[in-house]
Amino acid sequence: VHKLNGGHDAADKGRYRHYMQKEIFEQPQVVEATLAGRIGEKSVLSEALGARAHEILPEVKQVQIVACGTSYHAGLVARYWLEDWAGIPCSVEVASEIRYRKTAVRPGTLFVTISQSGETADTLAALRQARQQGQEELGYLASLTICNVPNSSLVRESELSLMTEAGPEIGVASTKAFTTQLVALQLFCIALAKVNGLPAEREAELVSALHQLPQLMEQFTGLDRLVQQTSEAFAEKHHALFLGRGVEYPIALEGALKLKEISYIHAEAYPAGELKHGPLALVDADMPVIVVAPNDELLEKLKSNLQEVRARGGQLFVFASPEAGFASEPGVTVVEVPDAPESLSPILYTVPLQLLSYHVALLKGTDVDQPRNLAKSVTVE
Amino acid sequence: VHKLNGGHDAADKGRYRHYMQKEIFEQPQVVEATLAGRIGEKSVLSEALGARAHEILPEVKQVQIVACGTSYHAGLVARYWLEDWAGIPCSVEVASEIRYRKTAVRPGTLFVTISQSGETADTLAALRQARQQGQEELGYLASLTICNVPNSSLVRESELSLMTEAGPEIGVASTKAFTTQLVALQLFCIALAKVNGLPAEREAELVSALHQLPQLMEQFTGLDRLVQQTSEAFAEKHHALFLGRGVEYPIALEGALKLKEISYIHAEAYPAGELKHGPLALVDADMPVIVVAPNDELLEKLKSNLQEVRARGGQLFVFASPEAGFASEPGVTVVEVPDAPESLSPILYTVPLQLLSYHVALLKGTDVDQPRNLAKSVTVE
Repeated sequence: VHKLNGGHDAADKGRYRHYMQKEIFEQPQVVEATLAGRIGEKSVLSEALGARAHEILPEVKQVQIVACGTSYHAGLVARYWLEDWAGIPCSVEVASEIRYRKTAVRPGTLFVTISQSGETADTLAALRQARQQGQEELGYLASLTICNVPNSSLVRESELSLMTEAGPEIGVASTKAFTTQLVALQLFCIALAKVNGLPAEREAELVSALHQLPQLMEQFTGLDRLVQQTSEAFAEKHHALFLGRGVEYPIALEGALKLKEISYIHAEAYPAGELKHGPLALVDADMPVIVVAPNDELLEKLKSNLQEVRARGGQLFVFASPEAGFASEPGVTVVEVPDAPESLSPILYTVPLQLLSYHVALLKGTDVDQPRNLAKSVTVE
Repeated sequence: VHKLNGGHDAADKGRYRHYMQKEIFEQPQVVEATLAGRIGEKSVLSEALGARAHEILPEVKQVQIVACGTSYHAGLVARYWLEDWAGIPCSVEVASEIRYRKTAVRPGTLFVTISQSGETADTLAALRQARQQGQEELGYLASLTICNVPNSSLVRESELSLMTEAGPEIGVASTKAFTTQLVALQLFCIALAKVNGLPAEREAELVSALHQLPQLMEQFTGLDRLVQQTSEAFAEKHHALFLGRGVEYPIALEGALKLKEISYIHAEAYPAGELKHGPLALVDADMPVIVVAPNDELLEKLKSNLQEVRARGGQLFVFASPEAGFASEPGVTVVEVPDAPESLSPILYTVPLQLLSYHVALLKGTDVDQPRNLAKSVTVE
């Protein structure tokens, strides 16, 4: 019998101890569901963004992304993809800020909202305000929402919508909603890049990587045991610093947010290049430093940032593939992750950081699915 | 006899115990020097930005600001002014990020760098890259630097420059360089607003406020004693959360950075509206919450954010003018600041936050002028 009050039985958790844990391990499936019917062998299917995408996408000259919390971090990742692949300038802002300031909009700007529930109060208010502006002379071109709940307010009130297929998310700390948002945003960025001259072979390369994503997600959830061991180093800590560069910087932000939300550890993220401009003063043996280090062109720069941390006695925890050439040594713990295509790395590297916050929370004995002071959907301002 | 090695005598500090303290108290004078010859009674003088400003400013349709650390925070403030007063969209990014990603530039975009030394390695590299791009089809319109050192690399390599008149800054934690950057940026924003239809009476209002700035800065440095008393509550703390909304959010970021740099307290800033999306989980009696609360249209929203903090046992320290209607009560300490025009509030509210970090550092016995791990100018990458 299905409960009508929207509650969830403990039985819904199946073999898992917490909803959050279940939702982390569901990611290979929900990522696959979000891709289903939207990619062909070598290209993003034009239907992916709905019937009106054909008219709207070619008019887009700029993108303004608006969201809150975890969804905001997904937006920050999309900016790197949009500017790189589509050559479209993109700005990303938290909803509670953009809606209370006077903004300037250039013609051809698409307004994009991201929200799991589709009811986030500040995001919805920002969309309504943007649509109001759109009726005036210099307003937005149109609006697109990336959302997990069909028929939600954001979906109903946006011209375009791209649904994530994460299914219901019960844990307050968002996990599978975030990774499916990244998948949907990547489809959107590729679609926009296509109408802006993305070469067919580059599209084929990106789409071929996406076909590997569910299986790679499975491999990354398989890091559970390794991450659990690592988490022991955090149980007694009160601080943590997450570092990333480029497209991994928002992933560091999201990793820090998870640790804050469910482990109550004061975790903060920085783009690694900003370390010398202040936060390095904080680094000592009491502040573990977590590093998201994929094997891309920023690797050498990142390594030099990490030497600074080591020189100050900071304890490093590096999530990296074997190709990145890190080795564990005193003060440096390398958590080896599978090798993966660069375009997928922000999606994949999210998984071990989710697992880290989960295991630290278990060690600390917090209420993982209902962390103190937080609600699932922030439907009040 | 003037030393030739560029060192500084203890005598340079005059009656002050530290360079940082001296530099905080010099702000009324250096702010006045930065305004001198650049504003008339009711308007910004067109010479303020140099001879070529006449040709370039009318072509500006968008602005990209690039900087590091404290200068980045100054850039974030300018965005609010530019979009509000000039109706010009503005994006702000840290130099070590923008220079390593592929960016998309719309025609008519002005590239603005901000740096005290004019030699910040990442900022300079970003400028050089932007100028390279500018020679290609879709590059930047021109470049402007806001800088404190004439003849520095940034000044020599930018089409336009607007000098801050802060004089030499010796303390590693930037104070007077930041507030003079805000003054220079405000002049730039008003100048750009003028060519975009800012009404003369609005310009007169903004300029009239600027005329009051040196005297108001004096009043705000006069908060020293009051802030010193407040600082005692922080000496034993290991965490702090700084909250602001709108144009005060970057000021909260800067306040948190100062506390990090010289007091080694893990301070982090959030736009107050983002509290519910995660950081509220961290709030308890061990994490003091510092609030920058000017008397503007966001006040009521801010007050409701603060009730959430109080409800979770968080200790509040509110910097607010009497008009804001805050009262000290158990768990809430109000540091009353003078009333001031809204356009000046980010510049002025910076001062008590500088004083706070200074006095906390004194209590903790850190090396105020030479905090551990940091250098004054980051001239290496």
